[in-house]
Amino acid sequence: MTHLTISRRGEEMPASPIRKLVPFAEAAKKKGVKVYHLNIGQPDIETPKMVLDAVRHSDFKILEYSHSAGNESYRKKLVSYYKKVGVDVSYEDILITTGGSEAILFGMMACCDEGDEIIIPEPFYANYNGFAVEAGVKVVPITSYIENGFALPPIEEFEKAITPRTRAIIICNPNNPTGYLYSKQELETLKEIVSKHNLFLFSDEAYREFCYEGEHFSAMSLQGVEENVVLMDTISKRYSACGGRIGALVTKNKALYSTVLKFGQARLSPPSFAQIAGEAAIDLPDNYFDETKAEYKKRRDLLVRRLNEMPGVHCPNPGGAFYAIAKLPIDDSDKFCQWLLEEFQYNNQTVMLAPATGFYGDPQLGRQEVRLAYVLNLNDINSSMDCLAQALQNYPGKV
Amino acid sequence: MTHLTISRRGEEMPASPIRKLVPFAEAAKKKGVKVYHLNIGQPDIETPKMVLDAVRHSDFKILEYSHSAGNESYRKKLVSYYKKVGVDVSYEDILITTGGSEAILFGMMACCDEGDEIIIPEPFYANYNGFAVEAGVKVVPITSYIENGFALPPIEEFEKAITPRTRAIIICNPNNPTGYLYSKQELETLKEIVSKHNLFLFSDEAYREFCYEGEHFSAMSLQGVEENVVLMDTISKRYSACGGRIGALVTKNKALYSTVLKFGQARLSPPSFAQIAGEAAIDLPDNYFDETKAEYKKRRDLLVRRLNEMPGVHCPNPGGAFYAIAKLPIDDSDKFCQWLLEEFQYNNQTVMLAPATGFYGDPQLGRQEVRLAYVLNLNDINSSMDCLAQALQNYPGKV
Repeated sequence: MTHLTISRRGEEMPASPIRKLVPFAEAAKKKGVKVYHLNIGQPDIETPKMVLDAVRHSDFKILEYSHSAGNESYRKKLVSYYKKVGVDVSYEDILITTGGSEAILFGMMACCDEGDEIIIPEPFYANYNGFAVEAGVKVVPITSYIENGFALPPIEEFEKAITPRTRAIIICNPNNPTGYLYSKQELETLKEIVSKHNLFLFSDEAYREFCYEGEHFSAMSLQGVEENVVLMDTISKRYSACGGRIGALVTKNKALYSTVLKFGQARLSPPSFAQIAGEAAIDLPDNYFDETKAEYKKRRDLLVRRLNEMPGVHCPNPGGAFYAIAKLPIDDSDKFCQWLLEEFQYNNQTVMLAPATGFYGDPQLGRQEVRLAYVLNLNDINSSMDCLAQALQNYPGKV
Repeated sequence: MTHLTISRRGEEMPASPIRKLVPFAEAAKKKGVKVYHLNIGQPDIETPKMVLDAVRHSDFKILEYSHSAGNESYRKKLVSYYKKVGVDVSYEDILITTGGSEAILFGMMACCDEGDEIIIPEPFYANYNGFAVEAGVKVVPITSYIENGFALPPIEEFEKAITPRTRAIIICNPNNPTGYLYSKQELETLKEIVSKHNLFLFSDEAYREFCYEGEHFSAMSLQGVEENVVLMDTISKRYSACGGRIGALVTKNKALYSTVLKFGQARLSPPSFAQIAGEAAIDLPDNYFDETKAEYKKRRDLLVRRLNEMPGVHCPNPGGAFYAIAKLPIDDSDKFCQWLLEEFQYNNQTVMLAPATGFYGDPQLGRQEVRLAYVLNLNDINSSMDCLAQALQNYPGKV
């Protein structure tokens, strides 16, 4: 006899570590406290008007299914976008997905069976864990350290972690949550590993345009591992278009592509409206990112400076994306972040941060670290840092 | 040592049976042959202008993530929609999904682990198979028969199919691909089974508004199995808004809901643009469906009459949706449907049908059956039936 119970997979599915403090933030707001949200990667940058206007001025009469791989016109235009960023692909290598999220899930499902393993340098984007649970995949974390700015762990660490069930390595470049920008040399190291052990290399390049130190080197540009590399992409952060839910999976591996297309056919098509937005975005002027990037860079500089000025705080300078991880003189980041919302205020303001524990596979790690998303304007970043500086003086669990 | 191969799951993933004939249709069109598409459920009915206008007239500046469960304003309005169709739910029972597809996948993942079983009366919507492969779930089909119009199989057939791994039964009501409308009595039978064996009852009610014979009775209205029932819904067919990719999973089972929300959080949010469309659609006048339904009914009447006038053809009169399955005097529906596109033409026209084989779990079934979607206007249905009548005379594999 069966029972009306939730699946083991459902039980194991992690709640979002970024969203779990939300009730405490809501309670603080109800008390009239202003909360600075540095906890979530929702940019405050406006979506380019021409991108939204493309949807608003559309004149079709039937909101039809698109092709399961996405509109051919969009895929063809994306070829020119990728060319501009130095990635040489054909539209037949590109499958439009429902957000970068779906690209990650499709990639995992196409490459892994239940019990297979994927190696991910930690701290890592927490939802990789969620998709892994959905796909029955075991995440094998390899720790990177704040002391060297979260650089790629040495090759020996990968070698130690590889088992007969290892199927892929995932990197996010530049990295969420650390902001670390992998160098060409580090990519070459990864190439060596995936080539030697016949692994897939999933490269999440959602933040490609936001590099402040050095150049972005795409995994798609690695020579000789074209069959191994799978690019996971999204318009969410690039054009401040998170709600569109448009991403892409890009690979030159034909067997993988046609498998992913079968997953795509089952869900019929990616969203039609936001495909129009994504296609229009490719016509943005070449200097579009200059302004956005300059704004993020100013924010990063301010945030990192303010953090490192606080006694006992260390924040490495992130090379890209719009995140930073800081080490704080505290006992426990989960407790601290909750305390900030529940018990602390400074001039009737407080700050919401993401405890870094949610980004590590090992539950003992990240207990003194928090992730900060610099998605607020310079004034607000200053005010939020004033709050944090004061909070670190008042916090009873200071160490 | 591992190998750079596709997962077993990826290999097992079925290609879309509806889309696999597409290359033959494209070749026919290139030869200048007009192809009547009765193979796919893409309605030709225009999306209501006010629904599209709601998106076109939106004036937000940032295309943000929505809540992972969907916009609260939309979920609250959906309560009034469900009330109108006799379903009493709270907005906290409703989770907005990326199409009905995601509701089905989330439901399967939340209730089933790898190797668990779901019973589905066959023929069934082919993508249930795809989602089952993704979730590692085994589909156990129970055959329904064209001879009695594809009515629900008797309770004994369900009893025979239930094992300790059975977790759920899926019905689609009214049914895709058969058009069968389940009676209240049949729903009560299902209630008895799921109640006795502690199973979930997944009810896909995508075509709720399109019932031509009798009243629709929702599984959500069954008394005493509120914890068992999960409604899978979508705006795709209801408002001819397939490309929006907006659906919903509705359940009063709180443990299930909070599990599904975790899956929702991992993928962040459903598409923002089409949530605006879905919310606007609830304000359509009460008589909106009258016209659409009257149009579909006329098409059904014509299609079914024309089919049954052909020698050796039998098509039961479907009570709802916009599909019919017909039994044809042919050797093999896959061969026949391909032949229609590759070798046949009548006045430079032909017709594209879906072989019913793709809708059965048992590969031996449906070989004399085809599914027809009556999503063309009356003139085109007449012309397509002229083609089919002629084709059945010419086809070399006639029996």
